[in-house]
Amino acid sequence: MTGAGGFIGRHVLSQLRDAGWEVHAVYSQSHTYAADNEKTAHHAVNLLLPGAAESLCKTVRPQCLLHLAWCAKPGGYWTSPENLSWVRATVELLEAFQHHGGEQAVLVGSCAEYDWSGEGVCREYQTPIKPATPYGRSKNATRELAELFGELHDIPVAWARIFHAYGPYEAPARLVPAVIGALLKGESARCSHGEQLRDLLHVADVAAALVQLLRVDARGAFNIGSGQPTRLREVIEYLARQLDAEHLLQFGVVPVAANDPPLLIADNQRLLATGWQPRFDLHSGLNDALAWWRGQI
Amino acid sequence: MTGAGGFIGRHVLSQLRDAGWEVHAVYSQSHTYAADNEKTAHHAVNLLLPGAAESLCKTVRPQCLLHLAWCAKPGGYWTSPENLSWVRATVELLEAFQHHGGEQAVLVGSCAEYDWSGEGVCREYQTPIKPATPYGRSKNATRELAELFGELHDIPVAWARIFHAYGPYEAPARLVPAVIGALLKGESARCSHGEQLRDLLHVADVAAALVQLLRVDARGAFNIGSGQPTRLREVIEYLARQLDAEHLLQFGVVPVAANDPPLLIADNQRLLATGWQPRFDLHSGLNDALAWWRGQI
Repeated sequence: MTGAGGFIGRHVLSQLRDAGWEVHAVYSQSHTYAADNEKTAHHAVNLLLPGAAESLCKTVRPQCLLHLAWCAKPGGYWTSPENLSWVRATVELLEAFQHHGGEQAVLVGSCAEYDWSGEGVCREYQTPIKPATPYGRSKNATRELAELFGELHDIPVAWARIFHAYGPYEAPARLVPAVIGALLKGESARCSHGEQLRDLLHVADVAAALVQLLRVDARGAFNIGSGQPTRLREVIEYLARQLDAEHLLQFGVVPVAANDPPLLIADNQRLLATGWQPRFDLHSGLNDALAWWRGQI
Repeated sequence: MTGAGGFIGRHVLSQLRDAGWEVHAVYSQSHTYAADNEKTAHHAVNLLLPGAAESLCKTVRPQCLLHLAWCAKPGGYWTSPENLSWVRATVELLEAFQHHGGEQAVLVGSCAEYDWSGEGVCREYQTPIKPATPYGRSKNATRELAELFGELHDIPVAWARIFHAYGPYEAPARLVPAVIGALLKGESARCSHGEQLRDLLHVADVAAALVQLLRVDARGAFNIGSGQPTRLREVIEYLARQLDAEHLLQFGVVPVAANDPPLLIADNQRLLATGWQPRFDLHSGLNDALAWWRGQI
């Protein structure tokens, strides 16, 4: 697995370990928080360097690939030229993986591949693909190439389109941590109107979905979401209630981008059909996030 | 320029040289037919090797890039896994080019990017894109990435969709050389029904179009074609008449693929608007090809 040090990667890694997989965890930089053990090896590799994927796969000879690494700097990643580098690095990784005996791959896409100007409920093989950002366009091109790779080499390739993941290790600037962080500090939480309907899924359930796609040799695109529309205002108010801090909420003071869709939800029928089930509902998930952020102070 | 030893590349190279450009000609393998001179340097580089593009661009520091290299083995290239490698290598080349000061790029696509099940006259920003082959899908993904590259770095990127080029140095297995070759040897030329309407353009005019896109800092997609529908039967019969060999033609003995479109023509208005004009019409072009192949015996 790549991106093992990331928000989603950390959760995937712990679930794979708990399930007894032999894991080679790849990080973008050296890490100090884990030592190799019998079942897990750690590798610091800059996959953007041409040739790095080849060396890695030659050493590890992985049977399965779960590729999470991508540029993910909050704010910046939507428009970064590094998106293009990740497309190229991903194809190089797939080729090296196949060249050294790889048998099955799960890659990660995004709801940003879909046309957001439509009805808002996204179905894998029905909703038009029309990414509006460099990030979405790069993910979508990678999907096209990964799909072609799978066909050319007869290797099962699953493409996991993640919607709105939240939970432990999320970047502090994103919605749930930003609200929790402000309220825990007794500061006001400046929000948009909050009327947007979004598909929130606890990151542990996102990770479980990725592991499930690995387990079942899944092929094709899968939305990774709860399938439930949640009004962001409800999320924010729930968090504030748990913290007795409703007086700190300021709705309507942050403008909403013109292209911000009112509704963006995953149809998760294809994911459910793999046997995956979420462990968290919205409240238990937010409680878990809240407990974790409290522990970080 | 890459692909300098290829069918189209040879013609581009001679035109650039004649026009006084300083050219760095990149070949997939070492070549013996040309020595460096004041205006042209030759480089043997396997661009599929990760890191090769970076070394090349670091040495050459090209201002303009004309990227022709791709897998092109007749028959095989439609479905080769090497198509994917060329996508990855092309992005790597674009990045290295930009990194070392590159200012403008022309890349080569194909009519195989279009949906062939439509009316058959292809317009760059109207005809649906629906490539049906690994080659077409890879070219199309590369176009999406090249377009994004141009936007992210504010570099003019032109995408030249070539239709049916013919002329000196064409691969012997393709239509025009195959018919000429058979008839020159006094063998029968086995053909399909020949009723397909195609857009034929002499390779020197294809090359001139690519050079023109370089000259005018073109941006976006350009069909490279004559704009004229030509029945393949007319091409074959014309060649046979010139060789007094009409008795050797066998029409209808080679089956036509089910997905072979009856009509596939370039709308070349965007190309004409750059100032490009073809030098050859169909007859003078075929005469030129014929003369060249005669000289090869």
